[in-house]
Amino acid sequence: MIAGVIGAAGYAGAEIVRILSRHPKIDALAASSTSYEGKKISDIYPNFTNLVDITLENPEAVIARSGVVFAALPHGVGETFAAKCFERGIPYIDMSADFRFDDDEEIYAAWYGKTYMYPELHKISIYGLPELNRGKLQKLAKSGGVIVGNPGCYPTAASLAAFPALARGLYGGGTIIIDAASGITGGGREPGRAYHFPECSDSMTPYKVCSHRHTPEISRNFSFMENMEKINSGARPLIFTPRLAPMNRGILSTLYIPLSDEWKCKPAPSAKPRPPSSAIQEKTERVRQLYAEFYQHEKFIRVLPKDVLPATGRVRLSNFCDIAVQIDQNGANLVVISAIDNMVKGAAGQAVQNMNIIFGFDEGCGLDTIPSLF
Amino acid sequence: MIAGVIGAAGYAGAEIVRILSRHPKIDALAASSTSYEGKKISDIYPNFTNLVDITLENPEAVIARSGVVFAALPHGVGETFAAKCFERGIPYIDMSADFRFDDDEEIYAAWYGKTYMYPELHKISIYGLPELNRGKLQKLAKSGGVIVGNPGCYPTAASLAAFPALARGLYGGGTIIIDAASGITGGGREPGRAYHFPECSDSMTPYKVCSHRHTPEISRNFSFMENMEKINSGARPLIFTPRLAPMNRGILSTLYIPLSDEWKCKPAPSAKPRPPSSAIQEKTERVRQLYAEFYQHEKFIRVLPKDVLPATGRVRLSNFCDIAVQIDQNGANLVVISAIDNMVKGAAGQAVQNMNIIFGFDEGCGLDTIPSLF
Amino acid sequence: MIAGVIGAAGYAGAEIVRILSRHPKIDALAASSTSYEGKKISDIYPNFTNLVDITLENPEAVIARSGVVFAALPHGVGETFAAKCFERGIPYIDMSADFRFDDDEEIYAAWYGKTYMYPELHKISIYGLPELNRGKLQKLAKSGGVIVGNPGCYPTAASLAAFPALARGLYGGGTIIIDAASGITGGGREPGRAYHFPECSDSMTPYKVCSHRHTPEISRNFSFMENMEKINSGARPLIFTPRLAPMNRGILSTLYIPLSDEWKCKPAPSAKPRPPSSAIQEKTERVRQLYAEFYQHEKFIRVLPKDVLPATGRVRLSNFCDIAVQIDQNGANLVVISAIDNMVKGAAGQAVQNMNIIFGFDEGCGLDTIPSLF
Amino acid sequence: MIAGVIGAAGYAGAEIVRILSRHPKIDALAASSTSYEGKKISDIYPNFTNLVDITLENPEAVIARSGVVFAALPHGVGETFAAKCFERGIPYIDMSADFRFDDDEEIYAAWYGKTYMYPELHKISIYGLPELNRGKLQKLAKSGGVIVGNPGCYPTAASLAAFPALARGLYGGGTIIIDAASGITGGGREPGRAYHFPECSDSMTPYKVCSHRHTPEISRNFSFMENMEKINSGARPLIFTPRLAPMNRGILSTLYIPLSDEWKCKPAPSAKPRPPSSAIQEKTERVRQLYAEFYQHEKFIRVLPKDVLPATGRVRLSNFCDIAVQIDQNGANLVVISAIDNMVKGAAGQAVQNMNIIFGFDEGCGLDTIPSLF
Repeated sequence: MIAGVIGAAGYAGAEIVRILSRHPKIDALAASSTSYEGKKISDIYPNFTNLVDITLENPEAVIARSGVVFAALPHGVGETFAAKCFERGIPYIDMSADFRFDDDEEIYAAWYGKTYMYPELHKISIYGLPELNRGKLQKLAKSGGVIVGNPGCYPTAASLAAFPALARGLYGGGTIIIDAASGITGGGREPGRAYHFPECSDSMTPYKVCSHRHTPEISRNFSFMENMEKINSGARPLIFTPRLAPMNRGILSTLYIPLSDEWKCKPAPSAKPRPPSSAIQEKTERVRQLYAEFYQHEKFIRVLPKDVLPATGRVRLSNFCDIAVQIDQNGANLVVISAIDNMVKGAAGQAVQNMNIIFGFDEGCGLDTIPSLF
Repeated sequence: MIAGVIGAAGYAGAEIVRILSRHPKIDALAASSTSYEGKKISDIYPNFTNLVDITLENPEAVIARSGVVFAALPHGVGETFAAKCFERGIPYIDMSADFRFDDDEEIYAAWYGKTYMYPELHKISIYGLPELNRGKLQKLAKSGGVIVGNPGCYPTAASLAAFPALARGLYGGGTIIIDAASGITGGGREPGRAYHFPECSDSMTPYKVCSHRHTPEISRNFSFMENMEKINSGARPLIFTPRLAPMNRGILSTLYIPLSDEWKCKPAPSAKPRPPSSAIQEKTERVRQLYAEFYQHEKFIRVLPKDVLPATGRVRLSNFCDIAVQIDQNGANLVVISAIDNMVKGAAGQAVQNMNIIFGFDEGCGLDTIPSLF
Repeated sequence: MIAGVIGAAGYAGAEIVRILSRHPKIDALAASSTSYEGKKISDIYPNFTNLVDITLENPEAVIARSGVVFAALPHGVGETFAAKCFERGIPYIDMSADFRFDDDEEIYAAWYGKTYMYPELHKISIYGLPELNRGKLQKLAKSGGVIVGNPGCYPTAASLAAFPALARGLYGGGTIIIDAASGITGGGREPGRAYHFPECSDSMTPYKVCSHRHTPEISRNFSFMENMEKINSGARPLIFTPRLAPMNRGILSTLYIPLSDEWKCKPAPSAKPRPPSSAIQEKTERVRQLYAEFYQHEKFIRVLPKDVLPATGRVRLSNFCDIAVQIDQNGANLVVISAIDNMVKGAAGQAVQNMNIIFGFDEGCGLDTIPSLF
Repeated sequence: MIAGVIGAAGYAGAEIVRILSRHPKIDALAASSTSYEGKKISDIYPNFTNLVDITLENPEAVIARSGVVFAALPHGVGETFAAKCFERGIPYIDMSADFRFDDDEEIYAAWYGKTYMYPELHKISIYGLPELNRGKLQKLAKSGGVIVGNPGCYPTAASLAAFPALARGLYGGGTIIIDAASGITGGGREPGRAYHFPECSDSMTPYKVCSHRHTPEISRNFSFMENMEKINSGARPLIFTPRLAPMNRGILSTLYIPLSDEWKCKPAPSAKPRPPSSAIQEKTERVRQLYAEFYQHEKFIRVLPKDVLPATGRVRLSNFCDIAVQIDQNGANLVVISAIDNMVKGAAGQAVQNMNIIFGFDEGCGLDTIPSLF
């Protein structure tokens, strides 16, 4: 099969190219770039020299030859290509936010300032977080045309960290806080002040506090997992603080989830702070096991052993999401920590995982990279 | 005046030496190191070559010649030196946790596993966070012997971020969450796996989640600012998550503080998440102004202009704490972000600030470094 | 086949484990570690969790089960294992310097301060730089017992950069200068001051100037390529300056090779410096083509296109050596720049390449990683 | 005195502002920026918040009020301002290359592609490397109008490393090689692909090999120090290879200088490479002492103690140039290593040093920063 990548000159597109070039089910690649049409991709990414020998074309040419199309375009410009692929009956996996909200145009418009060009496509499109939607995606794939809205990087890390707590009654209501840090590749390939080495190296800074566009995506995912019919921000409020960390890849997120009465622990009777008691540590271990069991069939979720904490450097270049849990010393909140590679599980790897599901390949096909420690 | 530094071979000690070497009121330095006695400090820190020409002595020799003594020793080993300084009537500024809890030996023992050797010294010692205790410290200084417990780095960043909210009725009770990231110098000078370049570079990881020793110090500071007679962890619970970030210096902390009814905002009537409304942004600006006014006489606190967020790189090498605030989009919590240089305001700079207060020098004396952007 | 790794807890050993775990011809791994015997390798390298499930044994147990053995031990301690493998007829690929000098014990003793335990093994052992010795290695492999001295990282980068110039008469005699910078993983897994994040991050420093142990290895390789019977340092002097750069992986080396009369260019007639003339640029292009042709059958050497310069980040995690050339503006010297990943082509990848040659596998088997740009 | 900075929004300009803001002889600052006229400098550099309170003006307004003017403009656009300052009799210190070549318009045109607008200014201007030209600069300052061409960063590091060898007969003729690595701030404030964090972090790459514009400046400095009447590239050839290293500040340069017969050492009689003999080490120590004595009155040159090598991290934020020497193991070449902070001794600090000389201030005035180790 030929796989097509529209918008291959950006970082997400280039990562898809990198991964697909070693995918055993993909025979060849076609790729487009508006800015670099006619150039070889190795002229833009010299790391591909001698290894990936594609000349960048226009999107139409790519779609015409491909059996699956990945779109790594800015928000709001790819629907026409989605429509073409749908018409041709080939799966379209979209890295932008365009298809992440199904037909909820209101929320898309509120956060991305755009409207839908082909509203009917959004009725059939699917949000491609396999750990949430695998079944639906498989069913849809059998039916013919598939349009996948590939999740955002932060929502992937946050949702996977929260799902077991939400699904199994650990969450007791109230604000969930998501505090996350991303590597600089999250800002994409275009140079800018915020990603200029001297200004971001050796420094950390938050951005878009409480106003990052991934907020409604995370909120919606949480509601889905809770089986709530409607997203209700009053009932399920969240706070999301993204930060830039001086590293290339990775998202480390920490979630603070208020525990339900069933899961709350009574702290040791003391008026002063104490480290988590052994009772709390035992309950923490029960939560860890619950998480492990929840994800036992998931290839790419690693609920870490007791006392091991996630580090972004330990999922580097892999499609894994590493997770650890801790009940706070007062027994009232669950702290969940997750780490992913923002460019792999947070973007290109997850897109390939979605492709594998659609075509019935082994879900880990082409995604068996062992994380490099350094 | 001669200033003495006990434990000058560690990072905190060496930073004190670096700062004091350019302090206009300090005529000379004396310094000790058990491991390197007899060596020149520039043999250990070649950056000092030709500039700081001290031979490391034993602690007794240092104390004998000094008019003020800084101790940068491990926890639990410095009380004898404190006693000697007190006896000689010279101020003793301690970088360890030994004197951070006044006479609350119970909490010290619970978290540091040690007991007090000279309980009476802890009755007169003072916690040296100038923005909290300046008045008491000035009064004490007039009375003669002064023992200062210099604050921990995380507690400094967290407390300064929370104080105005606590003091002015913004805090409505409930768990305060502190999510913080520190540069690697926080781990000190001794090489170890966690600080080995290949394993911490280009990676982020949490550590001691909910069990870091700075937890009771932060909790106590919060209670003090609230004018609570007793620390009551049930009433004022907090969660503290420290992380290592791949940078040399800096702490970036984010606090989530539940707002009191008076300060809560009603979000725009919507069932779905929205960015903060203009009403919330107006109230955020009121909070910003309240913070600015609260700290208007503080030399080292910069409540940043509207829409500017702290970055650790912008306080690098300075004694500043930069602060920004944001009410979350649901109007229920205050998000406060603070940035300090962990080695300066978080350690050595604050120690020198305490010395300046004790001796009645201008509080910024020797601390006028403009942060270098890179 | 089962592959064995002795000394798997160090960085080179762990990289071999990482690569072999995805090698299509290796069915299983056995690994040893003196310090961690009985532990799972993922206890030491959490990045391996769920992916590499080996319990560390003792070396004897590993040798007993393996069809090929890699030794990643300190210099001077592995000969006994080499002897055992030789006796059992299984290939032994040694990452230390012990077998890099054939039977030249004098040079080994002078630079490593050790003597040979089994001198006869050194008579049959072979230096495993495939681009130099592939033919000999293939022949030896047919004969039975094989002991390979896997090259050092700097010698690999330097030799591959120099070989075409030496073999094709570009070199005109005189001192060859090798100026190289290595990532911090070159210092291994043991924490130490020089690799402590705060002291090596954001800084560059040379070390062992003119006295690094890789000097005689580079010199010997150069002589081999020139077909000199004896190493003669007077005739073929070199200067080698290694440096530590604040990055995880990679060696960037620059070689300055005096040109032979045949290849010298006459600069434009000017008393003052000028950029390289078009005549010099044309000759530079001829040299580039000569290099490309010299390496045309080499899978892992990429002589870069005109005007593209190597960057260590562009060979990251791959077995490639990227090379570019430039004749200096006076037409008298060839500047050659090469980049490798010190842990792959400079260590573990090259070892696997040697294994592939020995067993007649495709030389790129298990080594087809596309370098990640970031 | 009011000091003026034209082009204060760029990195060199902002560093001058940072240093002058703490200069005891400067009462106030005026600064201009074409792009940001009317803005406060702290809007562009938030690290200056509350500390440097300048509104950016136009260049004319700055010149009108200033007693000394620093110009941090692109090459080829500042001569008019130089002329105005000269007319007004106020010193003009130019960070561009415009005044680095005196009246040698030919070499300036060949490398920078521009011609001189005011040729007569170039007859009186002076190259501002204090260690070379202090005397001339002092004399010129007495005469009235002063125009200083502040040196390039690489030429500063390279020249200071070579001067003693050139002046004292150590250099025996032949090619001098300069291999240098710079931090990313060397590329300035404008974001670009080469300085985009994900593409330069964790990687090293050379650029402009043999064709960097600092080549003729280095060559000219070498000739001056040798007291050669004319620059003669045939006679005094050099090769210069610049590289980008993943760090903020610093230049580390290594020079390879062929020794004169007088200084050559006979290596130990061996056909094979050996580490430097004790005889060579003794001669190395003699060279070190010669260097130390040559620079004994220089405030900002630190010839390091025996066996200590320069690291850019150890001159960070300071105006120092650290130097070490080593004769190669064959006794034929001197290897000299120097480290500077490219933004201080390589730019802004040296400019202030020049101002100090011009006005007869202590040369270290405002430049007494102790390098921070991290």
